[in-house]
Amino acid sequence: MYPKILALRDALRASNERLVLAESCTAGNVAAELGQIPGISNSLCGSLVVYRNDSKTQWLGIDRHGLDDPERGPVSEWVTSQLALSALQRTPEATLAAAITGHLGPGAPTGLDGVIYCAACHRDPPGSLTVIKHQLSSPMPQSDSDIAGRRARQVEATHALITFLLQWLPSRS
Amino acid sequence: MYPKILALRDALRASNERLVLAESCTAGNVAAELGQIPGISNSLCGSLVVYRNDSKTQWLGIDRHGLDDPERGPVSEWVTSQLALSALQRTPEATLAAAITGHLGPGAPTGLDGVIYCAACHRDPPGSLTVIKHQLSSPMPQSDSDIAGRRARQVEATHALITFLLQWLPSRS
Repeated sequence: MYPKILALRDALRASNERLVLAESCTAGNVAAELGQIPGISNSLCGSLVVYRNDSKTQWLGIDRHGLDDPERGPVSEWVTSQLALSALQRTPEATLAAAITGHLGPGAPTGLDGVIYCAACHRDPPGSLTVIKHQLSSPMPQSDSDIAGRRARQVEATHALITFLLQWLPSRS
Repeated sequence: MYPKILALRDALRASNERLVLAESCTAGNVAAELGQIPGISNSLCGSLVVYRNDSKTQWLGIDRHGLDDPERGPVSEWVTSQLALSALQRTPEATLAAAITGHLGPGAPTGLDGVIYCAACHRDPPGSLTVIKHQLSSPMPQSDSDIAGRRARQVEATHALITFLLQWLPSRS
């Protein structure tokens, strides 16, 4: 277990927040990490694991033209922001939302290997939004059979979102 | 990594299936397990991690009265079936859906400790649905701080759904 996950549970509890997630590259691993903690359902609404463009569009209303646009695309500040804002909108009892996208590789487009974006937004004030871009330090998976290499990046991306949320939560109040 | 996860990837690939998940007790861990595999986005649409009654209702239209009914409730054959059918309906490009609910404990209602339900359905023929009830063998978590005990059950439930899907996939054709 990632030690900071308990700090995130404590921070959510202390401020009576309910978090909803939209996860792409982590594929549900952030929610699964939180789900290990007994009683976390008081603070975790769930996670929309949008692993293909179609689920981003169908579940969260992300504009298909934006996903197909090479300047924006499925790994971008734009789509990560939209995922967080839309998850919050579709989850009335959530007080805040976080989203993550990224290219874990292998085979990422040039310049995007190991790049992730994390976004967080709060219901009050409406429209408040923070997004960061982060470069993973784990090496690119060597091939399509390098599951350990890809798992290392999935775990690193999970921890990056948790760390980002811990920094963001106190700063927003 | 759970060895059978590669067998599931192979089974999905071989039959050109696209899977969508609805996860409650596993909290995204089934999708995260699949997400370790490079190229799995060809076969995995995503997962709706519905960790509270409200997300079951808001995202998947599960009837609130059914969730509040002690004869049905959030861990039941009924709700697990509804989650699978609704996930499939809301994900047009998916060819099949699977759902899981369960009480990982501690503090489960009498008779439901360690009980999980797994459901799977296919788009063709419409309405086809299989549900199983399964008793986890990992012991009940000892307290609210027994994260390792709860994690053991989360992992066992994840493997139970993967094993169920591997048995169900060939039998349905």
